Amino acid sequence: MTKIIDGKAVSEQIKQELAVKTELLKSEKGITPGLALLLVGDNPASKVYVGSKERVSKELGYHSLVVKLPDTASEEEVLEYIKKWNNDPEIHGILVQLPLPKHIDENKVIMAISPRKDVDGFHPENFGRLVIGLPGFVSCTPAGIVELIKRYDIDVKGKHVVVIGRSNIVGKPIANLLYQKRDFANGIVTICHTGAKDISKYTLDADILITAIGVPNLIRKENIKEGVVIIDVGINSIPDSTKKSGQRLVGDVDFEGVKDMCSAITPVPGGVGPMTIAMLMQNTYLSASGEVGF
Amino acid sequence: MTKIIDGKAVSEQIKQELAVKTELLKSEKGITPGLALLLVGDNPASKVYVGSKERVSKELGYHSLVVKLPDTASEEEVLEYIKKWNNDPEIHGILVQLPLPKHIDENKVIMAISPRKDVDGFHPENFGRLVIGLPGFVSCTPAGIVELIKRYDIDVKGKHVVVIGRSNIVGKPIANLLYQKRDFANGIVTICHTGAKDISKYTLDADILITAIGVPNLIRKENIKEGVVIIDVGINSIPDSTKKSGQRLVGDVDFEGVKDMCSAITPVPGGVGPMTIAMLMQNTYLSASGEVGF
Repeated sequence: MTKIIDGKAVSEQIKQELAVKTELLKSEKGITPGLALLLVGDNPASKVYVGSKERVSKELGYHSLVVKLPDTASEEEVLEYIKKWNNDPEIHGILVQLPLPKHIDENKVIMAISPRKDVDGFHPENFGRLVIGLPGFVSCTPAGIVELIKRYDIDVKGKHVVVIGRSNIVGKPIANLLYQKRDFANGIVTICHTGAKDISKYTLDADILITAIGVPNLIRKENIKEGVVIIDVGINSIPDSTKKSGQRLVGDVDFEGVKDMCSAITPVPGGVGPMTIAMLMQNTYLSASGEVGF
Repeated sequence: MTKIIDGKAVSEQIKQELAVKTELLKSEKGITPGLALLLVGDNPASKVYVGSKERVSKELGYHSLVVKLPDTASEEEVLEYIKKWNNDPEIHGILVQLPLPKHIDENKVIMAISPRKDVDGFHPENFGRLVIGLPGFVSCTPAGIVELIKRYDIDVKGKHVVVIGRSNIVGKPIANLLYQKRDFANGIVTICHTGAKDISKYTLDADILITAIGVPNLIRKENIKEGVVIIDVGINSIPDSTKKSGQRLVGDVDFEGVKDMCSAITPVPGGVGPMTIAMLMQNTYLSASGEVGF
């Protein structure tokens, strides 16, 4: 009875849709979505992420540009690239892979990106636009959650949505999206975090529970009510001697323990995770097509 | 036993503090806080508000500048003034009194104000800064609520804060301030609104209840729990034949009915209301002194 929300399948579908729309944008308007990716240093995870973003953008027919700088690169060098791309009409989206080396001020770099090309949605102006309800770029993970809510017809209206976690990239934006008077939203939203004496007081009442806190097995069956929808944004690596790598990925929720109680749930991996790159591509497309214009 | 939160007294104290600090800023750094106020049209309430803002800024020793345009003024004219003040080093704060005549795009006007001089805190960049937790201008009503929380030593940490109303000027910003990991905050925040089937489910659990919805007597004693702190931001005019004007102001809360159950409560009038102008003056001072700089 439990719906398993298949983020991998949805993200593949979105990418197929984007490839078709990109063909049309090229043939009808002569516009090719352009994404500039900047990687500074040798962080192995960052290299993998940038590689995936480059690969997918090419699959969709985008113009993609990757600049890799050594971790000795100066803040000025990074800002120079951003300035150049801000003024380049062939670039519609700029992404600086985080984290940056310590000698570079991340906030300064994020704020140097034109809000009109900030497809990661990290600039305060885009954050403010999201909260106010103005057109702008929504950061990729919350945008992915909204897309799953829409495509699985999850009814948020009047429901109690409990968000665990108050990060700038997940908790805050998704909480601010889901109380708004919009078709996919209009929920009563509680934002809960490590400052709570007892989070189960809140999770037990949740109709929709969104966890983004990075604690494996934080949510077990005794913390939820029958019929809840769970969106698990946690990605935690735990030891697993049955795996060649000696570890495996789990979310913040004890998936096996809770799944029969849920009306719907996202697995980890394969739930929210795969949506992120798809949403980056969608934001880049929306920037190129002018559908998110301001 | 109930503490009546006296916003009038606190606002007077803040204004006195600002007058002293302004003297120092002038004598030590040669800086006079400058506030530019723009009024378009003949809305009687707007005229009163702008008049009060002008009077208080003069009392505090600010350089204040009021421009009144007829309601036939064009959007371009309004934008011209903003552009001039954005570039005027003697102006540290710009306030355009809302509402504007219908032929002028309010969003466009608000966004034309430099975020660095947006002492009303309405620009999306300042809104985003508030949510992210970066330095910026917090809009006056939520800033006033935070000031009352601080000066009355209301303990928000780990408490369930229920905000009724999701407006851009009160509900959204105060909700986003009070869940943050900051000394005056760190609450578990629920944002509730007209989309809820039954708001009393949420209000009954509130340790701190903030109402900003504009419905007289929405909250009665059967909707709250013993010991709650109530911040009533509603300002509603109701008929009252005992008054010369035939009406009086009340909040969203049945003050007389609930006050003995509360540990603290703001009256209407005399609670949050008087804080607004004080916070506008504080924002203007902080802009002039560079304490809020970005």
